[in-house]
Amino acid sequence: MVRGILLDLSGVLYVGDTAIAGAVDAVSRLRQANISYCFITNTTRRTSLSIQQSLTELGFSIKLDDIFTACSAALDYIRIHQLRPHVLVHRDLYQEFSTLDVRNPNAVVLGDAAEDFSYQNLNTAFRILMQDNTTEFISMGYNRYFMEADGLSLDLGAFTAALEFASGKQAIIMGKPSKDFFLQAVLKLGCKPEQVLMIGDDVESDVNGALRAGLQACLVKTGKYQQGDEDKICTANAQIADDVGAAIDRLLR
Amino acid sequence: MVRGILLDLSGVLYVGDTAIAGAVDAVSRLRQANISYCFITNTTRRTSLSIQQSLTELGFSIKLDDIFTACSAALDYIRIHQLRPHVLVHRDLYQEFSTLDVRNPNAVVLGDAAEDFSYQNLNTAFRILMQDNTTEFISMGYNRYFMEADGLSLDLGAFTAALEFASGKQAIIMGKPSKDFFLQAVLKLGCKPEQVLMIGDDVESDVNGALRAGLQACLVKTGKYQQGDEDKICTANAQIADDVGAAIDRLLR
Repeated sequence: MVRGILLDLSGVLYVGDTAIAGAVDAVSRLRQANISYCFITNTTRRTSLSIQQSLTELGFSIKLDDIFTACSAALDYIRIHQLRPHVLVHRDLYQEFSTLDVRNPNAVVLGDAAEDFSYQNLNTAFRILMQDNTTEFISMGYNRYFMEADGLSLDLGAFTAALEFASGKQAIIMGKPSKDFFLQAVLKLGCKPEQVLMIGDDVESDVNGALRAGLQACLVKTGKYQQGDEDKICTANAQIADDVGAAIDRLLR
Repeated sequence: MVRGILLDLSGVLYVGDTAIAGAVDAVSRLRQANISYCFITNTTRRTSLSIQQSLTELGFSIKLDDIFTACSAALDYIRIHQLRPHVLVHRDLYQEFSTLDVRNPNAVVLGDAAEDFSYQNLNTAFRILMQDNTTEFISMGYNRYFMEADGLSLDLGAFTAALEFASGKQAIIMGKPSKDFFLQAVLKLGCKPEQVLMIGDDVESDVNGALRAGLQACLVKTGKYQQGDEDKICTANAQIADDVGAAIDRLLR
């Protein structure tokens, strides 16, 4: 029995600047059904507000409060642990970190900085990680790649892995597939983990992450999905659907 | 009994633009003794000729033929396997790859591209790796970091790890700590592996790599050496010396 739904955004609702066929209608039907839902994303190239605006332009009707991001989880963690982070994130996300004390950093926070993943910026982050054994390494995701309009592209996980390898420090992951991150989203829905279905196109971050956190999961064959990804699912009871429309049809039938 | 010596370059003979104290003299004494030697480096920011010229300016007297690089090993591999590589290397190394057929690539070759490790260049390499399961991934090193004049800096290993993580493909490593690479250098000296001492500042790439290939090894406390590195040596019979001068003193006494 499914009482709540978590939906990934990029590759599930849209790719690049285009909504996936049937996705607008699927979200609309979900809103009319008596099921809690929330959009859960590791996208750290944009703020929640910017995500909401783009979704609106694509025809989706989504409340700002229904978007749960790795960035908000990271900000919570930084405040609770009173960290002074060196921040390497996308320039559109700077404002989210602008009120933090970042002098004499005792942590490095990594987001998907895209073109700002230059050698120099990565090296600066590396040197801060190497300054002191106690310096914390926080990353807002561990995704390998995502689907852009012109093909697969390197995601934050690759650069997290690079700094982990060089520094010998394991990053604390704030986004999917972190169990804590899924459980925070489940809490937001007011459900138990086993009552919640995660719908995503990333077999590792979305599907296996959710399953390991005790949720149900559905892999959709859109976005970054590649043939054979279903063979990488870590349990036998996951669902597979052609797209988010088919996944929600099956649920509401 | 030591009959041959392999010496690492950066961090052992020099750091940045400065020779390490006693290193020029140590190489000079080695030349006068009846011991084969060879300089073995993963440095892929420069050609062997450029390395030789800089060493000469620093006061070292070293023959071009005595420098064995990851780049020459990679070029051999590419020719033997008739690969058409997409090459992401330092711009000073382009000429070394200029005669290869690189159309319709069936391999990616990674060197230490330094500032050319941009998001876009890494993403291009990633997309070629993902095109086809048979596309080979060759990297000219797996070093985590190296010592520059202004501090530790990210080395090729970090970017190799990033592309391995994202693509799910394991790189074939052409430089240290690859066993094949050490054995090629040993062959060049005309010795048996157990007769050869490797002197280096990188506990993983130089020391443990050499020990695993059946050589002797000496860790020097210069360059990228950090306190506690000696505890990371994988066997009990490695040597430790303050610098290359002390290591060669001990050997020639």
